[in-house]
Amino acid sequence: MRNSTRSGVDPFIVMDVMEAARKAEEAGRHIIHMEVGQPGTGAPKGATEALAKAMEQGPLGYTVALGLPALRRRIAQMYGEWYNVDLNPERVVITPGSSGGFLLAFTALFDSGDRVGIGAPGYPSYRQILRALGLVAVDLPTAPEHRLQPVPADFAGLNLQGLMVASPANPTGTMLNHAAMGALIDAAHSQGASFISDEIYHGLEYEAKAVTALELTDECYVINSFSKYFSMTGWRVGWMVVPEDQVRVVERIAQNMFICAPHASQVAALAAMDCDEELQANLNVYRRNRALMLDGLPKAGFTNIAPPDGAFYVYADVSDLTDDSRAFAAEILDKVGVAVTPGLDFDPQRGHGTIRFSYARSTGDIEEGLRRLQRFMADRGLISAQA
Amino acid sequence: MRNSTRSGVDPFIVMDVMEAARKAEEAGRHIIHMEVGQPGTGAPKGATEALAKAMEQGPLGYTVALGLPALRRRIAQMYGEWYNVDLNPERVVITPGSSGGFLLAFTALFDSGDRVGIGAPGYPSYRQILRALGLVAVDLPTAPEHRLQPVPADFAGLNLQGLMVASPANPTGTMLNHAAMGALIDAAHSQGASFISDEIYHGLEYEAKAVTALELTDECYVINSFSKYFSMTGWRVGWMVVPEDQVRVVERIAQNMFICAPHASQVAALAAMDCDEELQANLNVYRRNRALMLDGLPKAGFTNIAPPDGAFYVYADVSDLTDDSRAFAAEILDKVGVAVTPGLDFDPQRGHGTIRFSYARSTGDIEEGLRRLQRFMADRGLISAQA
Repeated sequence: MRNSTRSGVDPFIVMDVMEAARKAEEAGRHIIHMEVGQPGTGAPKGATEALAKAMEQGPLGYTVALGLPALRRRIAQMYGEWYNVDLNPERVVITPGSSGGFLLAFTALFDSGDRVGIGAPGYPSYRQILRALGLVAVDLPTAPEHRLQPVPADFAGLNLQGLMVASPANPTGTMLNHAAMGALIDAAHSQGASFISDEIYHGLEYEAKAVTALELTDECYVINSFSKYFSMTGWRVGWMVVPEDQVRVVERIAQNMFICAPHASQVAALAAMDCDEELQANLNVYRRNRALMLDGLPKAGFTNIAPPDGAFYVYADVSDLTDDSRAFAAEILDKVGVAVTPGLDFDPQRGHGTIRFSYARSTGDIEEGLRRLQRFMADRGLISAQA
Repeated sequence: MRNSTRSGVDPFIVMDVMEAARKAEEAGRHIIHMEVGQPGTGAPKGATEALAKAMEQGPLGYTVALGLPALRRRIAQMYGEWYNVDLNPERVVITPGSSGGFLLAFTALFDSGDRVGIGAPGYPSYRQILRALGLVAVDLPTAPEHRLQPVPADFAGLNLQGLMVASPANPTGTMLNHAAMGALIDAAHSQGASFISDEIYHGLEYEAKAVTALELTDECYVINSFSKYFSMTGWRVGWMVVPEDQVRVVERIAQNMFICAPHASQVAALAAMDCDEELQANLNVYRRNRALMLDGLPKAGFTNIAPPDGAFYVYADVSDLTDDSRAFAAEILDKVGVAVTPGLDFDPQRGHGTIRFSYARSTGDIEEGLRRLQRFMADRGLISAQA
């Protein structure tokens, strides 16, 4: 059958790594997974208990398209608690994961051929979803001195209809402070571009609290999810905050595209929001893992890393070690059994010289992974053996 | 904020009916819901039990984009059992409801401006999702003598890139037999149009077994869901069968657009497929309700109805009674407390003269609803009081 041009989505290169890792495990090898972008933990206990109870109480049919009112209210309340932002619950739209938020935002705001700026490196699906919708992703190569985040000069004169940012970002973990975020919002608006802020890694921050775009403006779309801090990846539930005058248009698109986010997941998510103790314990694991990474990666010879303010990733420039990150990742997996993500998924231009390490799994795995990475680099003669 | 043209999605007119019904209930009135498109029953007991168990056993993280292999195999097996079709499980893609299937199919097959034929009346979201993706929905007005299903002559020379059919259809419940389906497939293919078959109401049929497009060709996309026969609306899980050469392209789009269908829902869906007893009991309720409708609606003066071969709807031509189905539905709700759906959602042109009745709820509700409809029509002088 004939396929559309827009369906020509790039494959994820990390999939090859994952498949190679799977095969190695099948063959009996022990693999450390530093390639994965999801917590090793499941939904909080309080969440699954609430769902088990709800399943006994009645059918979980469609919810209204905007989501369970109690969940929308609870999320609005969180904006008060986390950011001191007074948010009207009517502006909160429950979505099938942040993925659903991207689909809704891009559809509500952009027409075929519209140009949307995204930072490079960045989450690969921004580019692919934009393309699948007949829109144009405009890569904005970011500079290390700007923490690999875009700055207004990066898109001056580019005639964008939209700008999408992420803080903390994937794959770097770097964040935008108030001033940096504010400058991007102003520059986007003065160019007539809609501003979209991906805040999926909020709650996973280690030095300073992440800034929500809502602290600076109501004229933006904010996308978030229960997948990361709330540890509910497979549940496909997230949310989006939109300006008041956008609620009806987003509601109508959501009714048609999704009908609603999964009802069961919405019930679990609402309960997850009261599981601080378990979620903070997860966070403490990431915090320990991050400290180990910041100590161990440079010792292993990975010295050129972006400041990982949040999320659970470290993005390393390895261009002094290789010009083929794909082969380099394959070699690491082959030699010492550590799976890592080549940067090409995040940055088609410069990713041949970068690698993403995830520290989302257990501390024991991180310790072992770092030992193996040191051994790999020593064997390769890139660091001295006793480093 | 500025919105895209593609976001200009029509509101569902039935939403006004539902809101009016909700307000009437809040005010203490008893309302019979013949407007809803979902079962009153929840997921089968075996499904929720399986999920409760799975939640205790481990985290329900992302599944692979194509879905749990066991679920894909079980669905392929079902094609053998239901249709005697030998289906390669690799061709089965698990989707977030049939909605997810539409998004995947339209993206995989069509580029901006491409024209996709859909029968009118038809499920409103076909039109709206096509529009939201920058595609063009081409309404094919169908004829009563063709059971309100399209025939090849309806799209001869229309230069379509795609044809979408549904059997049993919403809102009519009418089906396509082998010959009718085969003629549509041939006509679509000879025009170079991709063929998509929405089979979401399969399993809910009362006279003959519904025909799957896969009995006739492998060159098609077939979309289905656990929402109707399996009674799992709010779980947002469905599936799509695609030709072998389409699996990779659909997989890549799914990875980016959805990551995966909800894991919990996939676990529940797999168990639901072994809950025949409960599902057949549900079907028997619909069967009883349908018999009541086919007897009671004509007695109430709704004589001009499409043959409801499947699903749980009856579509009535009321153009001899009103030229404003919206006002007519509002009047029925106001006078006798029965919520029905005006045809305008399904057929923008001719829907001002049609009404959809759903019989998805309890038999008691259907009996009471029919009594009230008779009273309404008698009070309006459209039938004699003792009818």
